[in-house]
Amino acid sequence: MATEIQKNFKEKNAQYASQFTQGHLALPPAKKYLIVTCMDARIDPSAAFGVDLGDAHIIRNAGASARDALRSVLVSQLLLGTREVLLVKHTGCGMLTFSNADARSLLAQSRGAAALDAVRDLDFLPFGDLDDAVREDVRFLKEGELADRGIAVTGWVYDVQTGGVRQVV
Amino acid sequence: MATEIQKNFKEKNAQYASQFTQGHLALPPAKKYLIVTCMDARIDPSAAFGVDLGDAHIIRNAGASARDALRSVLVSQLLLGTREVLLVKHTGCGMLTFSNADARSLLAQSRGAAALDAVRDLDFLPFGDLDDAVREDVRFLKEGELADRGIAVTGWVYDVQTGGVRQVV
Repeated sequence: MATEIQKNFKEKNAQYASQFTQGHLALPPAKKYLIVTCMDARIDPSAAFGVDLGDAHIIRNAGASARDALRSVLVSQLLLGTREVLLVKHTGCGMLTFSNADARSLLAQSRGAAALDAVRDLDFLPFGDLDDAVREDVRFLKEGELADRGIAVTGWVYDVQTGGVRQVV
Repeated sequence: MATEIQKNFKEKNAQYASQFTQGHLALPPAKKYLIVTCMDARIDPSAAFGVDLGDAHIIRNAGASARDALRSVLVSQLLLGTREVLLVKHTGCGMLTFSNADARSLLAQSRGAAALDAVRDLDFLPFGDLDDAVREDVRFLKEGELADRGIAVTGWVYDVQTGGVRQVV
């Protein structure tokens, strides 16, 4: 039986599909850029960052981690031709609130020792200072051995209380 | 000097922030669910999947890979209390169009041997059959040693030509 969440998903999607007019869009992003941002529920990248359908890749993970996004960034750039990156972290991020030890302890408690053992080497990638984390991730994308010097990379902070962005680097 | 993409980002965001009224939303997703979907430019999850601001985590990567999303999924469930997952891949996905060998070859061509060497062990996670890939990812989230049997996981395909979704599992 469908959950309330699944029912909402199907119903809202049926409404969306009934008015959908953009089935002609091409696979590669029309404006050749990508955004890396957080999975946080308070961020709507299309609306907040002015992304029209078909214009840009949007990668989202816990904390807007560039390292965690590496596979997707390479696919976007190498195979689908994007030439610019906006990295956007945000105020009040969950990744500022715990340590790897906290996460491991919760994992062991809720899913047991085998689960903990399965991700022994996993870095949950929490961070302690927001602006420093933005700078470090931009450096990773711009200066590492994987970087392409022809690709513009900027780093930003989105404020979940005001809806505004601020450039860090 | 700012690029056109950076100017558009700042201008559209300033408009968004000037009308923003949801600064009160809490960090944990109000509806306690998460969506894993693709970074594809033709997908607007908030609109297409009926997600109101503050309701759900949205994780996006190349191909909507559950394996690649593991860190974020664990953070969402262990630290921020989500209890349901919708995994949504889509028709016309770029990940259906290349092999690991193709990606490595492009990487070596455009960024040199040191770059290729730096990601020697990276699996770009392309796939050959869409529905099979959905089923495999749902299995990974539901049945692996990291799974929590109390968390509902369903798998879907979004059609980029019609805007509609179809449940696979």
